[in-house]
Amino acid sequence: MLNTNQNRRNMSKDRLIFVSNDDGYRAKGFAAAIEVAREFGRVVAVAPAEPQSGRSQAITMYEPLFLEKHRDEPDVEVYSFTGTPVDCVKWAFDHLLLNEKVDLVVSGINHGSNSAINVLYSGTMGAAIEGSFYGCPSVGLSLTDHDPNADFEAAKHYAREIISSVLDNPLQDGKPLCLNVNVPNIPMAEINGVKVCRQCRGIWREEFYRHEDPRGKPYYWLTGSYTNYEPCAADTDEWALANGYVSVVPVQIDMTSYSQMSHLERILK
Amino acid sequence: MLNTNQNRRNMSKDRLIFVSNDDGYRAKGFAAAIEVAREFGRVVAVAPAEPQSGRSQAITMYEPLFLEKHRDEPDVEVYSFTGTPVDCVKWAFDHLLLNEKVDLVVSGINHGSNSAINVLYSGTMGAAIEGSFYGCPSVGLSLTDHDPNADFEAAKHYAREIISSVLDNPLQDGKPLCLNVNVPNIPMAEINGVKVCRQCRGIWREEFYRHEDPRGKPYYWLTGSYTNYEPCAADTDEWALANGYVSVVPVQIDMTSYSQMSHLERILK
Repeated sequence: MLNTNQNRRNMSKDRLIFVSNDDGYRAKGFAAAIEVAREFGRVVAVAPAEPQSGRSQAITMYEPLFLEKHRDEPDVEVYSFTGTPVDCVKWAFDHLLLNEKVDLVVSGINHGSNSAINVLYSGTMGAAIEGSFYGCPSVGLSLTDHDPNADFEAAKHYAREIISSVLDNPLQDGKPLCLNVNVPNIPMAEINGVKVCRQCRGIWREEFYRHEDPRGKPYYWLTGSYTNYEPCAADTDEWALANGYVSVVPVQIDMTSYSQMSHLERILK
Repeated sequence: MLNTNQNRRNMSKDRLIFVSNDDGYRAKGFAAAIEVAREFGRVVAVAPAEPQSGRSQAITMYEPLFLEKHRDEPDVEVYSFTGTPVDCVKWAFDHLLLNEKVDLVVSGINHGSNSAINVLYSGTMGAAIEGSFYGCPSVGLSLTDHDPNADFEAAKHYAREIISSVLDNPLQDGKPLCLNVNVPNIPMAEINGVKVCRQCRGIWREEFYRHEDPRGKPYYWLTGSYTNYEPCAADTDEWALANGYVSVVPVQIDMTSYSQMSHLERILK
């Protein structure tokens, strides 16, 4: 996938890569994403001040947001922002980098899978999708391991390859690529390669853990498990991950169900 | 659209309609949605305890959630829940109504537009989309007026017609309908009818209002305006609303960009 020429061409410091995530600026996976991104250009990174998993495309409308700068090197700036992942992207594109051309958004590397329906709940993918709203190619990266000390070596290797390819081919038909990349949590030698897939159908069924607070007031706490509706379909991201592949799903932002439009026109007549 | 027979058939109290929103359980638009929904069956309504606009498909993972019951009538139960709109749907489907068949999810009526790209930020649509994950047809309803005391008469009229049609035709090719309905804020007599549309392309550009807190610490507060990328395209929801129609966009939950898959396979080789 990556040859020496591509590699050399990609190492331009003229390039600007924006990095965010949803696990917060202290996460090991965020450092891993910055480490890979800076191989390809100057990095500006803005991540949530606290973990924001499951925040989807959420924006913060009712609260002021506070910013803090954590790294200020010639080719790497890192900030934390008290909002959601999407707030981080918006602040970067509409404020800090307003007059700059961003070449790529990298979001992650997430601690935990964002395959299948998770693309819609994920703050990591929220940030990647927001990047594509701004016309910027974007790559959301996730490792299927929730451990705060997860081993990101294999994920970094594939991140590097995929980022290199996207920088060389950022658009298709004028549309920026927005990729949902998931890396299985297995030793790198056992990974079978990269597989382009579609989003698997399935659902999270929740079990609300019910308990009482110290004053006897009942509360609920979300927990759940994923049910795969099509475990045998070999073209899905879930299948790819279960079979040792890095899954890559191209994501689009038009939610229109075109196939239902004429049916709908008939029933609303 | 609605004839007397349909009307009579739809007024079954055997039917169970779940109602949620993102403006919170006190919102006038939520009461309007319940009022319409109860014409078609028994209503169970769970809405956020506080406003949750812009919460998208977000779930609450790091906090316990508290529930309160506000109405307990034979055909209407109303709860508030301290989570996001999606948490409300999940709690209803996976806890309270676990052993019941829900016939329809109604989300709204939102105070403010959820047309175009807003479908991805909207908590109202987050709840409607979540309903469709559970295999349930769903209707997200919005009035393009942010006023807490907005006039919902026209929105209720069209909500009634569309709900009736969806209850009669809930599926297409086995897939539940999930509709993003927006009603223009004009007198009912000036509304030209219902128009099935696609999601308009465009973007919210934000201006971060910057100020200092009482202790001199700077903060940012999100505010912005929408730019329509295709103001002349007559098949979009934005065009429909600008031309006096109620816009109805069928929404799908597969984010895969199928048209980019073969391109992606080539560049990742």
